Amino acid sequence: MTKPYPPIGYSDYLKVDDLLQLQCPRAEQFGISAHDEMLFIIVHQTYELWFKQILTELDSVLRIFARPKVDENALGTVVSRLGRITEIQRVLIDQISILETMTPLDFLEFRDALFPASGFQSIQFRLLENKLGLPRAQRLPFNAQPYTAYVGEAERARLEQSEKDVSLFECVEKWLERTPFLESDGFAFWELYRKAVARMFESDRELVRKNKVLNDEQRDKNLDGISANEDGFNAIFDEKRYNELRDQGSWRMSLRALHAALLINLYRDQPILQLPFRVLVSLQDIDENFTTWRYRHALMVHRMLGSKVGTGGSSGHRYLRAATDQHRVYGDLFNLATFLIPRSALPELPKAMRERLGFYYSDKKEG
Amino acid sequence: MTKPYPPIGYSDYLKVDDLLQLQCPRAEQFGISAHDEMLFIIVHQTYELWFKQILTELDSVLRIFARPKVDENALGTVVSRLGRITEIQRVLIDQISILETMTPLDFLEFRDALFPASGFQSIQFRLLENKLGLPRAQRLPFNAQPYTAYVGEAERARLEQSEKDVSLFECVEKWLERTPFLESDGFAFWELYRKAVARMFESDRELVRKNKVLNDEQRDKNLDGISANEDGFNAIFDEKRYNELRDQGSWRMSLRALHAALLINLYRDQPILQLPFRVLVSLQDIDENFTTWRYRHALMVHRMLGSKVGTGGSSGHRYLRAATDQHRVYGDLFNLATFLIPRSALPELPKAMRERLGFYYSDKKEG
Amino acid sequence: MTKPYPPIGYSDYLKVDDLLQLQCPRAEQFGISAHDEMLFIIVHQTYELWFKQILTELDSVLRIFARPKVDENALGTVVSRLGRITEIQRVLIDQISILETMTPLDFLEFRDALFPASGFQSIQFRLLENKLGLPRAQRLPFNAQPYTAYVGEAERARLEQSEKDVSLFECVEKWLERTPFLESDGFAFWELYRKAVARMFESDRELVRKNKVLNDEQRDKNLDGISANEDGFNAIFDEKRYNELRDQGSWRMSLRALHAALLINLYRDQPILQLPFRVLVSLQDIDENFTTWRYRHALMVHRMLGSKVGTGGSSGHRYLRAATDQHRVYGDLFNLATFLIPRSALPELPKAMRERLGFYYSDKKEG
Amino acid sequence: MTKPYPPIGYSDYLKVDDLLQLQCPRAEQFGISAHDEMLFIIVHQTYELWFKQILTELDSVLRIFARPKVDENALGTVVSRLGRITEIQRVLIDQISILETMTPLDFLEFRDALFPASGFQSIQFRLLENKLGLPRAQRLPFNAQPYTAYVGEAERARLEQSEKDVSLFECVEKWLERTPFLESDGFAFWELYRKAVARMFESDRELVRKNKVLNDEQRDKNLDGISANEDGFNAIFDEKRYNELRDQGSWRMSLRALHAALLINLYRDQPILQLPFRVLVSLQDIDENFTTWRYRHALMVHRMLGSKVGTGGSSGHRYLRAATDQHRVYGDLFNLATFLIPRSALPELPKAMRERLGFYYSDKKEG
Repeated sequence: MTKPYPPIGYSDYLKVDDLLQLQCPRAEQFGISAHDEMLFIIVHQTYELWFKQILTELDSVLRIFARPKVDENALGTVVSRLGRITEIQRVLIDQISILETMTPLDFLEFRDALFPASGFQSIQFRLLENKLGLPRAQRLPFNAQPYTAYVGEAERARLEQSEKDVSLFECVEKWLERTPFLESDGFAFWELYRKAVARMFESDRELVRKNKVLNDEQRDKNLDGISANEDGFNAIFDEKRYNELRDQGSWRMSLRALHAALLINLYRDQPILQLPFRVLVSLQDIDENFTTWRYRHALMVHRMLGSKVGTGGSSGHRYLRAATDQHRVYGDLFNLATFLIPRSALPELPKAMRERLGFYYSDKKEG
Repeated sequence: MTKPYPPIGYSDYLKVDDLLQLQCPRAEQFGISAHDEMLFIIVHQTYELWFKQILTELDSVLRIFARPKVDENALGTVVSRLGRITEIQRVLIDQISILETMTPLDFLEFRDALFPASGFQSIQFRLLENKLGLPRAQRLPFNAQPYTAYVGEAERARLEQSEKDVSLFECVEKWLERTPFLESDGFAFWELYRKAVARMFESDRELVRKNKVLNDEQRDKNLDGISANEDGFNAIFDEKRYNELRDQGSWRMSLRALHAALLINLYRDQPILQLPFRVLVSLQDIDENFTTWRYRHALMVHRMLGSKVGTGGSSGHRYLRAATDQHRVYGDLFNLATFLIPRSALPELPKAMRERLGFYYSDKKEG
Repeated sequence: MTKPYPPIGYSDYLKVDDLLQLQCPRAEQFGISAHDEMLFIIVHQTYELWFKQILTELDSVLRIFARPKVDENALGTVVSRLGRITEIQRVLIDQISILETMTPLDFLEFRDALFPASGFQSIQFRLLENKLGLPRAQRLPFNAQPYTAYVGEAERARLEQSEKDVSLFECVEKWLERTPFLESDGFAFWELYRKAVARMFESDRELVRKNKVLNDEQRDKNLDGISANEDGFNAIFDEKRYNELRDQGSWRMSLRALHAALLINLYRDQPILQLPFRVLVSLQDIDENFTTWRYRHALMVHRMLGSKVGTGGSSGHRYLRAATDQHRVYGDLFNLATFLIPRSALPELPKAMRERLGFYYSDKKEG
Repeated sequence: MTKPYPPIGYSDYLKVDDLLQLQCPRAEQFGISAHDEMLFIIVHQTYELWFKQILTELDSVLRIFARPKVDENALGTVVSRLGRITEIQRVLIDQISILETMTPLDFLEFRDALFPASGFQSIQFRLLENKLGLPRAQRLPFNAQPYTAYVGEAERARLEQSEKDVSLFECVEKWLERTPFLESDGFAFWELYRKAVARMFESDRELVRKNKVLNDEQRDKNLDGISANEDGFNAIFDEKRYNELRDQGSWRMSLRALHAALLINLYRDQPILQLPFRVLVSLQDIDENFTTWRYRHALMVHRMLGSKVGTGGSSGHRYLRAATDQHRVYGDLFNLATFLIPRSALPELPKAMRERLGFYYSDKKEG
């Protein structure tokens, strides 16, 4: 615990003077008065700073997950850092309200000064999407060009490299696939689970049949819907079927990973599964927050520009809205809810297995 | 200032005892343990309380706007009450995070207890949509039934009456149409505005032509986009054309109301237009907040149910997501941004008119 | 998985009709127009509903903690439910902004109608404080009366009973005291810790001595401060000393519980300590959120009433502000930060102990 | 509407590359691993960026108010810009939750690296306080040194200059003093107001006398409180008395400004007073938000450091908490609520005056 650091002041530590030099409203430089350009710059710079922080957290989580064997001590850290990302995202979403204090007319005063700059060119945001696990093929094409078309050479290389690097999605998939409890201790989980599921669907059908609000046509439509759902269920029992759906884009994760995610959700109260469960919840939170952010961003662009062409030549809010749903990464984890069955219907864990999922100390200890 | 009130205590005033009797978890009554049902009930009851408050504010604003001549003293009140609605909406949106602390598995423990109850049956939310101005024809059909199919007789009558009553949208449209400044004092606003617009589009075309990132095809596509925008502009100058677009659903407001809204946006700094401008901004805020709430609600339903059929037999998150965009009421005000031109390009108001837009006192007074 | 429930609609399930009968603005009944009274009622009713939810969560957590041996499977549930309380608190805090859309003048229109009702009479809030662990002796006296003076007979009895029931503070204290790792496996933690602490203080003194901004007088003052801190440190090594401070009110928890909390903080990465650590963090979050809520409430009262006497005869914002700091329950956990030392300075855990803090499965498993 | 701007890309416009160079975690440079230092830096840099934006808005508002006659067209702009500050403050407050994802133990890993840097040295925050109108004499002394003791020469000069410049508090005070309606049109406002006030206090006394919960001692205490309040009321009618209280620090604004603020609050529905009223409300919002931010900051410091000496040698959270109340600037506007009387008790404005407070156009126009 030697303290090697020479003393330092607040401004030097945070490089405040340099930081405050970096806001250069352009309209002013060209003799045009546009009060709100400063706001526009600062909002975007804070976004870039927060993106850097999110990348810092993502990178650290990737380092933990990229190991062939994930250190069990590190899962708490993973949950904390993913949780920090969601706290940052809350602020990213709320910040939109600050930018919306700028009216469309105020924006027009300097809009030409930005041409053809566009949020499309934020390298960090693209990196962030790639690291989270958005594959190029899933991106909604814009102007029939790849998303890398709008940035410089070096930046393109950096983006392409990040596509080659392993993403969080891939890491998590591999980590899930390695879950050892799926078929251990002679626990025939899938067999029992399949039976429980069959019982549940029968019960759902009965609910629709008894619903007096529905006329015959609606009843049939609903029963068809249930059959479609059951069909989906069959897919997660039948690997071939699942892989077909996966090829069509309905699923992205491997079936084995999906099984593990389901097991973690269902038996999350077991001590050894509690943190893995929180990891999965955090990934959904992050996915949902980015989706919300994208949606609010699309609304804001609509409000600011109407149906005008965006500063970077983009056709604006319609593209952004379509991309909102398209660019989700962890939709599989949301769709997983389709396959949950009530705790009361769950096959019980054998005692031997339950013990193994606990702590070494647990027989002697409290809490 | 006589004080007629007999003394009262906190619990009596707020009817706390009655209030706390109204949470009756159903699972428990049937001997099933489902801790989170209380949360589910309380979240929804707070929603209904807030809906009542929003309706209270909307009704009071409707009373002000429904008069043939809107009292100028009352505009400040209108702005405050619309502003209150947006504050409530912030909380409505944030409350979703509370409900999301319930996991899909926790929900499953009592989901059957709610069947076939559905948020679709919230009368207050439907009233609120109707009062804001969502017409039946614009509603996304669900199960090919009218939205009133899911409620009781008396409630249906109440909803149908609210459709007949004048909505805030209609009131605001009429109020805008009565704006006296559109053609007063010999100010040929529209003539000058049209010329300014033509200059602006020429300039936009030039920007695209100079954009080196675009290839020929993209350039043509963008130029086509600008022509399409200019086309839209022509619509607001040509009443016949505008009414055709309106019949097709691209616009909803009358052209005269739209002109007034545009004028208010462009000359909002004039004292007499400052509060009308804030009214228009508040309507956009309200529209955007409900849209955001609907979107987050759809995400939450996806998370909670996956692709399962909803408790009321609804096909769930896909319907909700589609309705999110479809059920916006004040889209016209957002689209208005398409037609704004920079302040620097605005035709200047003649001095005589400028004076008339000010206060009686203004020659003598400060601030 | 039988489904015993008869069908039910939304309104019946949530008792919406009854719920919407419970808002009875009093001014109106006496022929006085006071638009904002509805808001006042609804804000407070939503508060009471949320208080009920918080009590529901607290009670469930108390049931888990009140057992002589806390089920390790249940700790995840505890963390989730405490986390839910903090999400609710975020909304409670944000709701103040809704009430602040009511101006003091609007409040005056119906203020007399409430006399002498007062938030002091919210039984649920008092229960909540008692269950969290606020002892009567710690409450800031108001008008020289006990806090139960302002409520009815039955309610007083209920509050007095809740003071006798075991509180969360007491449960957590007992649970901490039972932590088995404090002296197990021959790990002489406290001896090593004491040495590490001594090294740290020496280093802190050096930092102050080298600080050139300080003049002699300030330097001495700071060094005195450090000595005072070290003094406090000695207290946690010397039981007699600690108990004296505890009698004076500087500490509330038993020394043994404090030791355990410190150990959990320091070695939180060990699998078996990860959830206990999150429990402690959640308690701090809850304490901080109530404190923030109280503070914002005091500011709002100041804004609404200035220095007027409150509706219940209370002297208003000054009392509330003083109570804000006084009524904190988990200050000990905040003060604990005083005694943390950097990870790098921590005595390392012996391998045998490290293994025991892990999972049974961990030698074979992944993540 | 020439478009003089050469094309520019996103990164160049926002200087993203430079921006992302400015985070230099110090621990790392000295070979120490401290993951959370990046977060610490980025949180503080975003704070500094937002402070710059708030200063930008404050400066623009000061320019408007500093003119001998405030342009009535500009008041809408003032309200918008003050409103923007409050939106930014909401984010500043919420950001604290991000920093709190760092635990005290994580902070310890790099805390020594910051020594003796301290938030005390944020020039922008001090400027912001000075521009809002916090006078040096009101600042809570720290280590018996002036607040300028902790910064460099040039920065000290800048701070001292800002103390000499006119503050927003002073501008607003002057603007209020110039309000022309206080004694115009033969309206003897103060005389009528004084009578209405006397009636109100008599009624308040009666309320206390009738309150059966209070015993004799409490009743007397409350009656004394009312007399004290009435005494305060007398102060605002008696200039000599008021000025004595002002010298003692109970008030800060001139009596004439206070009268004007009261009149604006009471007659805010008059068109010409609606925006001035919003200006006063915004100033309270800003004051309340900074106060809340300071309070939450103090709680966070307590949580992070316990009772340790802060990085800059400060005695930490106790100082911060005391400064929270001490450093409020617009307390007068909050205290004003003490002197409001219900609308129903207000002296009515004579018709001639009412007309003068309206718009020139109002006889002919709608809304």
